[in-house]
Amino acid sequence: MNISGSTRLICLLGSPVVHSISPAMHNAAFQYHDLDYAYLAFDVGENRLASVVEALKEMNVRGFNLTMPDKNLMAALCDRLSPAAEISGSVNTVLNENGVLTGYTTDGIGYMKACEDAGFDIIGKKMTLFGAGGAATAILVQAALDGVREISLFTRDPKREHTLKIVSALRERTGRKIQLFSYEDEDVLRRELADSQILTNGTNLGMAPHEEGCILPDASFLHKDLIVSDIIYNPRKTRLLQMAEEAGCPHFNGLYMLLYQGAEAFRIWTGKDMPLDLIKEKFFR
Amino acid sequence: MNISGSTRLICLLGSPVVHSISPAMHNAAFQYHDLDYAYLAFDVGENRLASVVEALKEMNVRGFNLTMPDKNLMAALCDRLSPAAEISGSVNTVLNENGVLTGYTTDGIGYMKACEDAGFDIIGKKMTLFGAGGAATAILVQAALDGVREISLFTRDPKREHTLKIVSALRERTGRKIQLFSYEDEDVLRRELADSQILTNGTNLGMAPHEEGCILPDASFLHKDLIVSDIIYNPRKTRLLQMAEEAGCPHFNGLYMLLYQGAEAFRIWTGKDMPLDLIKEKFFR
Repeated sequence: MNISGSTRLICLLGSPVVHSISPAMHNAAFQYHDLDYAYLAFDVGENRLASVVEALKEMNVRGFNLTMPDKNLMAALCDRLSPAAEISGSVNTVLNENGVLTGYTTDGIGYMKACEDAGFDIIGKKMTLFGAGGAATAILVQAALDGVREISLFTRDPKREHTLKIVSALRERTGRKIQLFSYEDEDVLRRELADSQILTNGTNLGMAPHEEGCILPDASFLHKDLIVSDIIYNPRKTRLLQMAEEAGCPHFNGLYMLLYQGAEAFRIWTGKDMPLDLIKEKFFR
Repeated sequence: MNISGSTRLICLLGSPVVHSISPAMHNAAFQYHDLDYAYLAFDVGENRLASVVEALKEMNVRGFNLTMPDKNLMAALCDRLSPAAEISGSVNTVLNENGVLTGYTTDGIGYMKACEDAGFDIIGKKMTLFGAGGAATAILVQAALDGVREISLFTRDPKREHTLKIVSALRERTGRKIQLFSYEDEDVLRRELADSQILTNGTNLGMAPHEEGCILPDASFLHKDLIVSDIIYNPRKTRLLQMAEEAGCPHFNGLYMLLYQGAEAFRIWTGKDMPLDLIKEKFFR
């Protein structure tokens, strides 16, 4: 890419960031559209986030991404928030317009588009979702906003105040049926899955190097029409997805969630569509 | 160039910076050596310099350049200064080593190397130098440090405290003969030029769009062995250099001063030599 004196920075803040695929993905997309931006990653944790964000405004960056552990603090540093960012209290994408920062969370959009990309329409359907961390929350919020009819959320601590607050705000805003259950309640899990159209693992259970982890005890919880999805992409096929495959369930992993969260951020900064075929070919094989 | 999550930023701060050649030059040199750096320019004036510099440390940049109006303030923000930066009170290059900032001024080195590149050896010789701004001061300091024997400095205000202080520190450090004269004293100028080996215009007199400007009233001040040099490179041939050409004097413009100040900064950040032939071919024709 050709960087000149007019090239504007877009960056990723988080810790660690050294192995992030975002710089390669966004720079390739800038180049494709001949956009005068360059995307770099900076290892910046929460203690230094506020001062770096102030400086990035002064350096007139077009925007930036946030990854762990900066997403929640960033929500507090923005001037404006998208509805999903406001409800989830989490920001992974910031647009800078003359020093006014608008925060978005595109992780949930990434999941919803990955689902669509895999050929599934879950609008008006019922989802069983695992997890109460950043990724699971992003999916919960976006799924409800987009029109998933009913969500049964399984978490380690269904009485956690943070989760209850988000669920309550989301119910109020969307009118969806959202229920909270405990991980450990296997009978309830079996019941909720029985009439769900999609199961989503939003936890890191099963992620390398702990591939043996799985949210389900066994395949008896699955039914053949259940779409099984995982936000994990390392390994590409978690134990959950192997189980789904063996049970004949349609399934998809978390790889394209990563692609589409980036594509949505790209659209926010540039107003243009990420060249998906090119980016898939280069970075998501 | 390939930017990944491990790529470190090096940048230019100043205002304006949009037309700077530095990003193109340094990025080409990083690419040549396969170095994992990217160079961008940020429009940052003095009022925001301190906070941006603090953030750049937190973003673990390898270093940065300064251009107008930031060079003097930057000297005050460094933890350590090179001798030339300390005497001139001006910094155009910063090296960041784990948050410890060392300031250098490579403009004077750029001039001295450009002189050498043009085939001239002025060590032990006498220089007549015009100007008391940043560029002229950088040349004054580096020429004295490098061993130019005698410097006659012509400025608009030879009693200006800032200039007197620098000249006094420089005399003390180097033991060179440095004399201060007024622009307007044409008889003194004629006398000083008569036994000088080199004349250097360190002012912007003659720079586009005011090409008619010239530090000399006419060619009668020149003698045929006098090397005539200009820090201006737009136009490539100022009125001063035209006059020198017509009088048969050897001469060179400011283009390679720009190249070599960058090459020295590149060496400070990377420990490697800028690929001069490549960079001349691509950007200095």
